This record gives sequence, structure tokens and C-alpha cells, in this order.
Amino acid sequence: ENLQVVERVTARAPVPIVVGVSAPGFAAMGALARASMDKGAAGVMVAPPSSLKTDGQIVSYYHNPAETLGELPFVQQDFPLVTDVVVPVDVILKIVEDCPTCVMLKHEDWPGRDKISALRKASDAGARRISILCGNGGLFLLEEMLRGADGAMTGFSFPEMMADVVSAANAGEIDRARDLFDAYMPFIRYEAQPGMGLAIRKHVLAERGAIAHATLRKPGGSLNAAAQAEVAALLARQAARLADLGCCGFWSTRRPPRPWPPNSAPPSRPSTLTNAPITSTCRASCQSCGPTRSIQCATRARARFRPPP
Amino acid sequence: ENLQVVERVTARAPVPIVVGVSAPGFAAMGALARASMDKGAAGVMVAPPSSLKTDGQIVSYYHNPAETLGELPFVQQDFPLVTDVVVPVDVILKIVEDCPTCVMLKHEDWPGRDKISALRKASDAGARRISILCGNGGLFLLEEMLRGADGAMTGFSFPEMMADVVSAANAGEIDRARDLFDAYMPFIRYEAQPGMGLAIRKHVLAERGAIAHATLRKPGGSLNAAAQAEVAALLARQAARLADLGCCGFWSTRRPPRPWPPNSAPPSRPSTLTNAPITSTCRASCQSCGPTRSIQCATRARARFRPPP
Amino acid sequence: ENLQVVERVTARAPVPIVVGVSAPGFAAMGALARASMDKGAAGVMVAPPSSLKTDGQIVSYYHNPAETLGELPFVQQDFPLVTDVVVPVDVILKIVEDCPTCVMLKHEDWPGRDKISALRKASDAGARRISILCGNGGLFLLEEMLRGADGAMTGFSFPEMMADVVSAANAGEIDRARDLFDAYMPFIRYEAQPGMGLAIRKHVLAERGAIAHATLRKPGGSLNAAAQAEVAALLARQAARLADLGCCGFWSTRRPPRPWPPNSAPPSRPSTLTNAPITSTCRASCQSCGPTRSIQCATRARARFRPPP
Amino acid sequence: ENLQVVERVTARAPVPIVVGVSAPGFAAMGALARASMDKGAAGVMVAPPSSLKTDGQIVSYYHNPAETLGELPFVQQDFPLVTDVVVPVDVILKIVEDCPTCVMLKHEDWPGRDKISALRKASDAGARRISILCGNGGLFLLEEMLRGADGAMTGFSFPEMMADVVSAANAGEIDRARDLFDAYMPFIRYEAQPGMGLAIRKHVLAERGAIAHATLRKPGGSLNAAAQAEVAALLARQAARLADLGCCGFWSTRRPPRPWPPNSAPPSRPSTLTNAPITSTCRASCQSCGPTRSIQCATRARARFRPPP
Repeated sequence: ENLQVVERVTARAPVPIVVGVSAPGFAAMGALARASMDKGAAGVMVAPPSSLKTDGQIVSYYHNPAETLGELPFVQQDFPLVTDVVVPVDVILKIVEDCPTCVMLKHEDWPGRDKISALRKASDAGARRISILCGNGGLFLLEEMLRGADGAMTGFSFPEMMADVVSAANAGEIDRARDLFDAYMPFIRYEAQPGMGLAIRKHVLAERGAIAHATLRKPGGSLNAAAQAEVAALLARQAARLADLGCCGFWSTRRPPRPWPPNSAPPSRPSTLTNAPITSTCRASCQSCGPTRSIQCATRARARFRPPP
Repeated sequence: ENLQVVERVTARAPVPIVVGVSAPGFAAMGALARASMDKGAAGVMVAPPSSLKTDGQIVSYYHNPAETLGELPFVQQDFPLVTDVVVPVDVILKIVEDCPTCVMLKHEDWPGRDKISALRKASDAGARRISILCGNGGLFLLEEMLRGADGAMTGFSFPEMMADVVSAANAGEIDRARDLFDAYMPFIRYEAQPGMGLAIRKHVLAERGAIAHATLRKPGGSLNAAAQAEVAALLARQAARLADLGCCGFWSTRRPPRPWPPNSAPPSRPSTLTNAPITSTCRASCQSCGPTRSIQCATRARARFRPPP
Repeated sequence: ENLQVVERVTARAPVPIVVGVSAPGFAAMGALARASMDKGAAGVMVAPPSSLKTDGQIVSYYHNPAETLGELPFVQQDFPLVTDVVVPVDVILKIVEDCPTCVMLKHEDWPGRDKISALRKASDAGARRISILCGNGGLFLLEEMLRGADGAMTGFSFPEMMADVVSAANAGEIDRARDLFDAYMPFIRYEAQPGMGLAIRKHVLAERGAIAHATLRKPGGSLNAAAQAEVAALLARQAARLADLGCCGFWSTRRPPRPWPPNSAPPSRPSTLTNAPITSTCRASCQSCGPTRSIQCATRARARFRPPP
Repeated sequence: ENLQVVERVTARAPVPIVVGVSAPGFAAMGALARASMDKGAAGVMVAPPSSLKTDGQIVSYYHNPAETLGELPFVQQDFPLVTDVVVPVDVILKIVEDCPTCVMLKHEDWPGRDKISALRKASDAGARRISILCGNGGLFLLEEMLRGADGAMTGFSFPEMMADVVSAANAGEIDRARDLFDAYMPFIRYEAQPGMGLAIRKHVLAERGAIAHATLRKPGGSLNAAAQAEVAALLARQAARLADLGCCGFWSTRRPPRPWPPNSAPPSRPSTLTNAPITSTCRASCQSCGPTRSIQCATRARARFRPPP
């Protein structure tokens, strides 16, 4: 079933797909990774298991996926609030040094912006530069971009928020980026509630017409009437603010609203992650509806300082 | 030292003071509680120890402080993210039923607004009504007020945010309350970062002239230059938005800005918490600078713009 | 691969097999359970996920496997040290009442013997009686039998310890049961070391000739020379004590020692767990070598007070 | 009250006393440490707070007590099961290198004997040698001595077990040490039950006449009748085995049995811990009856292979 989701998503997504393959055993991890790449994934992501406690244990652990995955490019996920594994900057750098196929960091330490600054300082001083895409629902995306992140790879009901904030930040239009970011802020905060995020996101994506219905598999719950009213109030104000900014907030109380993603002709998509800087951002967030495994997406459209001709 | 802080704070605060007295042993809890009340506290607060796991254990536990504290009014603190104790609504209600001196809930479950709704439904149906003041840095204050909360009792660099949002909500001016809340939202989010909140708050309160300096006791840290720049950028925009709303944002890059709290003559302050509804909000946030024990404040006085004659 | 293990084990084991089917999603749980029963399992086991916190959440959770599994008999696993879910006696009894297909408790709360006493008191007073088999490597097996447990279902290098202690206890020969239990005690303690148990067990089972080699899948480790020496010293003394007790300790430094299980003709094995009391014990412990899923075994040889003619 | 306990214990104990001074703030830690030394303590012990996650954080943390305590000798407590801080061997060695006043390790990692071996290998190779006393209720004391530990510093109802096992091990009488250790093993296991240990220990010490009564402060519990019967059965067998070994098991069902500690004239006690090897063991276990703070004891009688002339 995991692979069916990968196949469907890669066939439709206008962006590279990274598949999470964290598993207790390396045989299972390798099998899922190879099958996902066969189905069109651009790379895979590995989080450290919560049993890891010391610096040395974390470095040693990552030698295993690097060996198991062979040539496949992989993403290090740094998400202490979920994994309970705190990874210091020098451990991240040691993994980057030891494992040439580690091409990206999914940054979800919170607060962890000093890590981004330190990693960029290290690569400026000669360490291999890897891409840094940010998570945590985008709650600190603007501040993370200003520290040197390359984009976002996370779930949020309005993926265009991430695309637009990153584009504006990359274009040097920081005030514009802040205006957009603040317009979405009350709802970013709302969706970031622990244990409720996926139900909120599916509710909104269903309202927007992007998915057919909002149901989560058991034991996932659904939004009750009080929460739906909170969402509606927040999104009405969000649409008004976006309109003031000249954006189409395209939120409507009448469904079906405008289909999503709006592009009829997806742009060409590179097939595999490389060590080249990843400089755009997530335009699509596809999280599988069960609690099993997430599929996450990232764009890597063009080099930051070398725009397409 | 705890008592020195209590004495200083109660002497100056225009609001009732609730002193946290959670302690591993009940003898120590009782001694601190009685001394705090002697120094002018209006009540005390007890959080459940993390060793409690089942519904029955939680109810049994609260019988002990109720017995130890005798006639002293106490606040139940519901803060699962820190205590790791999840307290269902029927357990809260059982404690309220068993312990007549439990007069308030400090609500910090997250997300936990359905609890507020359920508690209000229960008291509408005949259960004893207790006050509900909200915490978590005010991150969901507006939504909590709409569910039936009475106010806030939490730490935030701009206590006037809580006073103003609660006043507007109580006056039925929901749009005004949302405008104010959204103006502060990016910084509420920023201050809510785990492990950094107190350093941020002391930095801002020092900048505002409310406290003499921002130093935290070891092992507490301080804000580095990058974080201070993030704060400055957020607060400049916040001041502009508040000015648009006709509020004095009173943030200045020149220090000392306007002193805080601004009132020279504090209003009269009720001496002890009672079972009567607490319906206003925090006008002062005083958190001791060490990691030892927090002193928190709540008003139950009157609306901000209608000072006593 | 899980099912291959189930098939192999059920084909050879002289005892009923219970297959652990805990899974994040109920669809996966149901599929594995049905396939396992098809391969010869006698029942399945479900542990509560660590996200469950309150009494009500635990009861509600078990309604789902009961519904998903339909007619299949299932075992409630009570293992707070691993699941971090503390299940009070009245919650266990409520699940037994609500779910007629819950036929057994795997008791691994530690210390939790008062739970056994309370459950037996409840069934004496009219609640449906379920079987109670004990875990935790047998560390308190004797004391648990005296509280009313029916046997053991756990991993230990010498499954005959469990069979013999339970038989002696059931025959009322308590001193004999204690002599046997104490003879194994230093090694029971040794094998109970967190994180090392499986490596120790496979090392010993390989030395005894029961399995072909002691290798654990990565990231599982192996016993270093110092630990192997500790094992050898403990087992030499254990063999001597067992010989004093007239038991064959059958430990040898020359391999292969006596094959295991020693019975050439396995007794007939009932095909499915029922509500009838389970009154014998584990004679075989088969734990899969990967970290994925355990296969555990239990006998249900004859009714306690109705011995075979 | 802490200091009253320290004063009483140091006045009576025939051994050096180490006082646990772990505290959230360093000012409180330093004050308690100095007062304890004034009252006669031989040293103090500091455990790492659970907020420490990375190797670097742990090393940095210990610089603070080393600075705060000045010349006072301190013990590093390594107890991951309680502190949730896993300290690798090279971090322990770095603390020993950075902090000359760190004179001892209280070893309670479980399983952690490879750490003892590694630390001894390091000191044999030139690192400063510190004393290693073991905890965890003595559950692996024999094996720990064989790895190079110097003794025990932990709570157990029969402190003479630790004294006798360590003496026999130090005298090279390993079989005798194992015989003694195994005789106590079923009860060592029993007392090691999480959450019950202190109630068991006080029950037994009261039965032995060493303390006046077994009551624990709330919320500590007491042993119910079923547990008391389990204790009585275990201790009757233990006394018989010790008698077989020519030891006085001095357990009696008639109280008061022989007073404890039995020595009427305590040996002279060195006043302060030093860097000299600590080579004897705990002859007295004094744990304060409240959950607040433990007082633990260690002897440092004579050099292992260089007995005093």
C-alpha cells in the first residue's frame, strides 16, 4: 500500500518526491527505498530511532542506512520533538562527511535556527554543503530562510504559503515575505496543534477540493463542529488579508472551490536528488491518510543564483 | 528566597497573586503555601506529579493537597506537556466535587479547548463552576475565551495583550479582539519556543524598562545576536500594526521606553480567591528569574479602559 | 516474513502459539491476525499504543481490535515499562466485560502482583475469569503463581525452568518450586538486563544446540568476550545446583549438547484459545531474531482441577 | 531538615558519608554542599539533569558544579534509568580530565559493566584513576567487582551483603563471594522492584530493629499483607542458606532482632574523600525516609593491594 501511494503521488506531482523509509530493520528500509525509487521517488529520508542517545551512537547508526541504501541519495531528518534524539551540529557534519549520499537535512529541531547558521558557516568554511529544507508546519519558515535554509518540506493546508514565502525571500523581498507569512500566521499556529494537524489539514484540503474527503483512518479523529467553526473564522480573515496583499486567497465557503494544484501542465521534474543546491520549495504536500508513513515533497527547481535563461 | 519574591510581588502587584507550591512532599507544600498566604498571596497552585498515571491515582493525589492546605483556596494546574499527566474532564470534575477548596483550573492542555467546552457544559448542568484561566503563553487565548474561559494566567512579554484581548472578548467585540490578537501573533509564536521563552521574555521586559536586566540564573541562557535581531524585526512590525489599530504599541529601540506597569496607583486588590467567577485577566506577569518556582498573577478586577473612579 | 516465522513455529511447536499483532493501523492488525490464524496460531496478542493516557482512552482503544478481529481470541498485553500505558484493574475488567473475545492477560506490569490478586478476587466474585500468563523473563514467576497466575509466556534461555516451576506450584509443592526457581535466579536476573536479553538468550540457545547460530539482525548486537565469560560462570554454577536438586541441568561447554526441545513426539496441541482456563505453561520460547515482531508460545494442556484421566 | 539528617548520620556512621546535592540551580547546590561538609560529610554527589542530551552538553554541565563547589570533592552519578542521560565513557573521562575535584563515579548504568572495564583500561593507560562504587541495589555487584569496581554505594536491607561480597572479592575468594551473593539474590531481586524498594527496605530494617518504624512519608506507600508474606518467605530461606554458609543470617520473626549496625565501637573514619583509591565498600545504608534527598555512604578503608602496615 505504501508503494501504491508513492506511485500515485510521483505520477502526478510536479516536484521531486522524498519518501520516508525509517524502519526498525535495515532490510525493510532498503527494500522500501529501492521500490520507492523504482516508482519515481527522487530520494528517501531516514530519521534516527529514539534508542540512540550519545553522539557516537548517532554517527554509527547513519553508517548503516548509508551502506544499505548504496547509491540512493538520502535525507537526514532532525526532529527531536518526535524522535527524542538531539543531534548536535558536529554530529550532522560528521554524518555528511562520512556519508557522501547524505544530500539534505530536513530541519525540524525547535528552536534550532542556530543549527542552520552553524551549518552554513561550516560549509562556507569548506565542509560539504547540503540542502536544508525546513519542517514543523512552516511555523518559523521566514526566520529559517534568513538563516540560510533552502526551502520547506512539510505539511500545511496552503502549500502556496511556503512557495510564496520562499520565492519572496530568495528574491530579497523580505518585507513582502513577512507580509505573506504574517497573513497565514494565525492558521499556521492553528494547524500546528499536536495531534490535530492532520485532521485540520485534511479538512481544509477537502474544503478546497484538493482531496475527495477528510476522513482519517482509525484511530485518527475528525474535526468536531466547534473546531470547524474555529477554522472557518480563521480562514475568512486569512482570505481578506491575502486579498489586501493582492493575493488570491481562494478560500470559499461554497464548495467545491478552485481545484488544487491549479496548474494543468506540470513543469518538468528532475528525477533524482543530487548534491547540487536545492533552492526552491515544496509546492505540494501529500501526507498519506493513515498513521503509517508519510510521503513528502520538495522542489529543486533551479539553482539559486543561476536562474534559467 | 521564594518567600522574598512572594512578598515583593504581592506588595506591588495590582492583582491577586497565585503562588505555585507543587512539591514532592506535602509537608513542604503546606509550609510554603501558608507562608505565601501570610505574605499576601490570594491562593496557591498545585500541579500533579508526573508519577501519576491512572484516573484514580490523579483523584486520590488531589485529596492530599486539599487536606494539607486546609481552608486555603487552590488552583488545579492541567499542563500535560510538562507534567506528562493527562487529566480527563471527568477527573477534573471529580476533584472539583471532592475538594471544595479547588476554586480554579489553570488550563494548559494543548490542544484542550474541548475540555473548556465540556467543563462549562457540566457547570451549566449543575456541577460547581470554577474559574478557568489559560496558560501556554496565550497562544490560543482568543479561541479559549470563545469556549468559555475567564481569562489568562501566563507569561508573555506584553501582558497588555492578554488584558486587551480578554476585555474585548468579554465586551462582545470579537473582531476587535481578533485584530489585537493577530497583531501580537507572530511574537506570541516566537516567545512560545520551548526552552527559549524565559530568555526572550526577560530580554523584552528589560528593553521595555520593566526589569533592570535580562540575565537568567545558570543554567539559563541568554539571547544571542541573531535571536535579538529576530526579536527586533518582529517587534518593529508589531508596533506598526498596533498603531494602525489605535493602540500604543510602546516599543522603542531607544531605552528606557515607557515604564511598566504604567499605573502609578494600583487598584484595590481582593485578598483571597473565592468561588465567585474570576472574569478578568492577567495584568501583570511576574516570573521569577531562576528555574525554581514561578509566581504568577491574575486579575479579577475590571476592564482596562474603565479605571475605577 | 512474519508469516513464514509463524508457519515454521506452529508446525513444530508442541504448544499453542500466540502471535503479537500490535500495529498502528487496524487494517494491518486484522490482516496479520487472520493470516496468522490460517497458519496455525491459537490466538493473537494486542498491546496498547503509548499514545493512550486515560482510563477511558484505553477502554475505547480495545473496542477497535475486538471489532477488527471478529471471532478471533485475543490476549491483552499489560506491559507498562515498554508501552508506558498504565492499565488499572478496573480498566482490565471493563475490557474483559466489553470484549468477550479477550481470553487472556499477558501480565508484565512490574511490580504488579497486586493486580493478579485483584483480578482473581474479581473473578471469584462473578467477573468472567480470564487466563493470566506472566512475562518479564520470569523474574517473579513463583510469586505470581502464588497470587493466582496460570503460567508463563515469556522468553528465557531455559524454558524448562518455567515449565518446572509452574508444574511444581500447581502440584502444591511450593518448596520444590522455590528450590528450582532459586537455582535459576542468578541467570534469570542476568538475562533480564535491558537491551541485552535477546543477545544473551540467543547465545545460550545456540550453545545448547537449539538454534543454529546466535547472530542478531542489525542493529542488534552480540555478546562480547567479557559477557560470555560472565554467562559461562553463572551457568556452571546453575548446572551444579540443578544436579543437587536431581535435575538434569544439561549445560555443557562441549557443543552440541542435548537437542531442544527434547520431546521427539510432540503432544497433541489444541488449535485455538478458548475461554476455558489455561493452566499449564510455556514449554517453548521462540522469539524471532529481528526486532520486528515476537512470536510467543503458551501451553494450555489440561484443566487445572480436572486432570486428564 | 536535609542538614539535620546529614548531621545525625555523620555523627553515627562508621564510614564516610556522601551527600547528594543535585539541584536545579547552582546557588542552591553550592549552599547545600558547603553546609553538608560542615556537618561532617566526606563529599557530595551530582547527577546530570535530564535536560542534557548531547555529549557536549554533559561535559559543559559538569564544569558548573566543579566551579561552584570549589575545592569540595564530588562524585559523578551515572544513572541513566532515572536521569535519562546516557553518558559515554569518553564523556566521563573528559569530565575527570577537566575537573580535578571529581574523585569518584557512582556507577548505576544498567547494563553498564563494559563502562567499568573501559574506564579501568583508560586509567591503566594513563588517565587519572577515580574510584568506582556501584549502585542499583547491588543487583550486579559481583560481576561489577570482577570488572574493576571498588565497592558499592547503594541501598539494600542487608548492607552486610555488600561488605561481605566486596571483602571476599577483594581477597580473591571468588567462589565464596558468589556463594554469598547467590544466597541474597532472590531478595536483592525482590527489593529492586521499581517504586517498591524503599517501602521494602524500611519494612525489613524495622523488622531487624535498625529503625524505629517503617512508615514512609506521603505519597510513599507501605507493604500490604501479601507483600509482607512474600518478604517473610524469602527471608526465611535466605537465613537458612546463610547459616549453611556459616554466616549469621540474623533474621528472626521475633523482634527486635540484633541491633544494627552491630559494631559498638565504630572504626575511625576519614574526613574527606581524596583521589586515593576507594577500595572497601558500604557498610551502612542510610536513605532518608522522604522522597527529597538521599544520603549515601561509602567506606574507603584501605588500598586494595597495599593493605596498611
